[in-house]
Amino acid sequence: MAGDFAPEEFRARVARAQRRMAEHGLAAILLTTEPEIRYVTGFLTRFWESPSRPWFVVIPAAGDPIAVIPAIGAPLMARGWISDIRAWDAPQPGDDGVSLLVETLRSVAGGGRIGMPMGPESQLRMPLVDFRRVEAAIAPATVVPDAGIMAGLRAVKSAAEIARIETACAIGGRAFARVGEIARPGRSLAAVFRDFQRLCLEEGADDVRYLAGGAGPLGYDDVISPATDAPLVDGDVLMLDTGLTHGGYFCDYDRNFAMGRPDRRVQSAWHRLIEASDAGLAAARPGARACDLWSAMNAICGTTGGRLGHGLGMQLTEGLSLIAADETVLEPGMVLTLEPAVAVAEGASLVHEENIVITETGARLLSPAASRDLPRL
Amino acid sequence: MAGDFAPEEFRARVARAQRRMAEHGLAAILLTTEPEIRYVTGFLTRFWESPSRPWFVVIPAAGDPIAVIPAIGAPLMARGWISDIRAWDAPQPGDDGVSLLVETLRSVAGGGRIGMPMGPESQLRMPLVDFRRVEAAIAPATVVPDAGIMAGLRAVKSAAEIARIETACAIGGRAFARVGEIARPGRSLAAVFRDFQRLCLEEGADDVRYLAGGAGPLGYDDVISPATDAPLVDGDVLMLDTGLTHGGYFCDYDRNFAMGRPDRRVQSAWHRLIEASDAGLAAARPGARACDLWSAMNAICGTTGGRLGHGLGMQLTEGLSLIAADETVLEPGMVLTLEPAVAVAEGASLVHEENIVITETGARLLSPAASRDLPRL
Repeated sequence: MAGDFAPEEFRARVARAQRRMAEHGLAAILLTTEPEIRYVTGFLTRFWESPSRPWFVVIPAAGDPIAVIPAIGAPLMARGWISDIRAWDAPQPGDDGVSLLVETLRSVAGGGRIGMPMGPESQLRMPLVDFRRVEAAIAPATVVPDAGIMAGLRAVKSAAEIARIETACAIGGRAFARVGEIARPGRSLAAVFRDFQRLCLEEGADDVRYLAGGAGPLGYDDVISPATDAPLVDGDVLMLDTGLTHGGYFCDYDRNFAMGRPDRRVQSAWHRLIEASDAGLAAARPGARACDLWSAMNAICGTTGGRLGHGLGMQLTEGLSLIAADETVLEPGMVLTLEPAVAVAEGASLVHEENIVITETGARLLSPAASRDLPRL
Repeated sequence: MAGDFAPEEFRARVARAQRRMAEHGLAAILLTTEPEIRYVTGFLTRFWESPSRPWFVVIPAAGDPIAVIPAIGAPLMARGWISDIRAWDAPQPGDDGVSLLVETLRSVAGGGRIGMPMGPESQLRMPLVDFRRVEAAIAPATVVPDAGIMAGLRAVKSAAEIARIETACAIGGRAFARVGEIARPGRSLAAVFRDFQRLCLEEGADDVRYLAGGAGPLGYDDVISPATDAPLVDGDVLMLDTGLTHGGYFCDYDRNFAMGRPDRRVQSAWHRLIEASDAGLAAARPGARACDLWSAMNAICGTTGGRLGHGLGMQLTEGLSLIAADETVLEPGMVLTLEPAVAVAEGASLVHEENIVITETGARLLSPAASRDLPRL
């Protein structure tokens, strides 16, 4: 699956960025991370798993972006829409792209302000020592926050992006429909995790970048631990939560399954979860705020303070959070998760998760509709 | 598969770090990235796939490390050997761990120098805006390079770490032995990629974090592009290169397969590749330099300047590079790849890759020995 969209899509993204750059007086934007560089160039590769080489893209105030990248990536970059590709033989101890980046920034930005994503969720994917050398070398130009431009652009998805997420959701749905093949009492959660990833691949995932889950008679405790070799037990509720990708876009939702007859408290919690995610979906529309969705779900599931969903796209989680403190206003094209949790007992909860897209008039599910009753295996 | 080792292993790592910190006058080390935090704490989770929350570990000049982390990770962290866990409800707009980290650094480091990995391959996994706030708030303490302490420690693996990498290699070997089940003329490379990941999981991989490859009659061009839907053709040579993990440690090696009868030029190149990796293995011993291994292989495979291998461990690539400019001296316990490449024609090469560990007297293969003849499917 290629990462490319039509060149018009990338041109539109860059044009939007440049309009906002003009409003904020930015002479350029400098990008160093995978999703940001892919958003602008379409450059899709699993090679980012290797930390050995830094990669840079510079968006000028006008004109097409410039890729300043290791030579190993130049052929793939050249297959996309970017024509100005400046490559060096990396890794190159002592000057790993620094002088090439400095030269590029100087020519593009002069002595102006260069925006860089450096707010929430951002990372600096280059050695800090080299970043400081770049900063010193480009003076009087300065590197400043990008005023949230990149995060703002990425938050509102195009139809082509939404289609990829929906396809990822459908792949996950087909894998979830086959969980009965792999999960039964006596099998370990570790074996189920391995097999579920296999099912995702069989159903068409490009890769399975994330998998979490848990199991227990009244739910599960934390949902970020690796699976153990402890066997599933009759009466357990099993949860699998996957972030698989299709064409560089994630789905991120979970499904719960009862191994035999679930405890009454589990059934009751399950119905509250469904009620809560229904309420989140009903509250989701243009003009509503992230915190409004949180309130709608929190009033039903009764957790206190926890995050009940987040933005979704090129990353497993990105952008807004469904928390009390996030007042981001929803717009058509935003894709997010609804992720209510209900405590069943001390240290045991259930979590349900759906993926939705904000439409002109409300919202619709991207993940296949969950069963109203807790499915039994 | 749990990420933990015996507490003694972590204590020994920290003790080594603290000895070097004393030599370099560092009052603390601050860590923000997954492998560095896992190296010190054993904290293993796929949750790092989510960029929403920063994570911090502080190694004091004496005493145990302190975890300053999002509350969602506290239960998993508490299962390991770290007892001082300071958690906040993340994401928390406006103060996402900043004040908790500042308070911790102040109490640990006073007005001293705080080391941070900021050299080659390092990244800053926290918003730069927040990092600058931390720097300002801890003055007169300063954040300085860690003098390569963390990279130096990680480069020399313990017996327990080497065992994990060797197990990952064995899992990959069993998957490679089954490539005949999934690859044949007419099938697309994309389908083979998906199926090979499935084989890796069936053979015991925790996950398949990296997969690259290529196919063509005289080899392949770039090896970082995603697979396409173009079908394999009789006479192609197919290469698959995997970075699967076991207990948080990677293998990273490839295997080549001829689809039917390979071109004579491919056969000839293949034998040069084997000769080159043999030469790399023969040159690998304590006291030899990374560039010596590069020279030994480059003299045979005749590429000019490219990287012919790298360190391996908690990351797909880490530490030294087998390039002319890297004079790192090899020590027992270092794990690396030998990755010679031979050009067959314009835009078509073969790459062969093995994983090795430096021993007291030389080196030994961790990846199962490759066939001396190019395997045919």
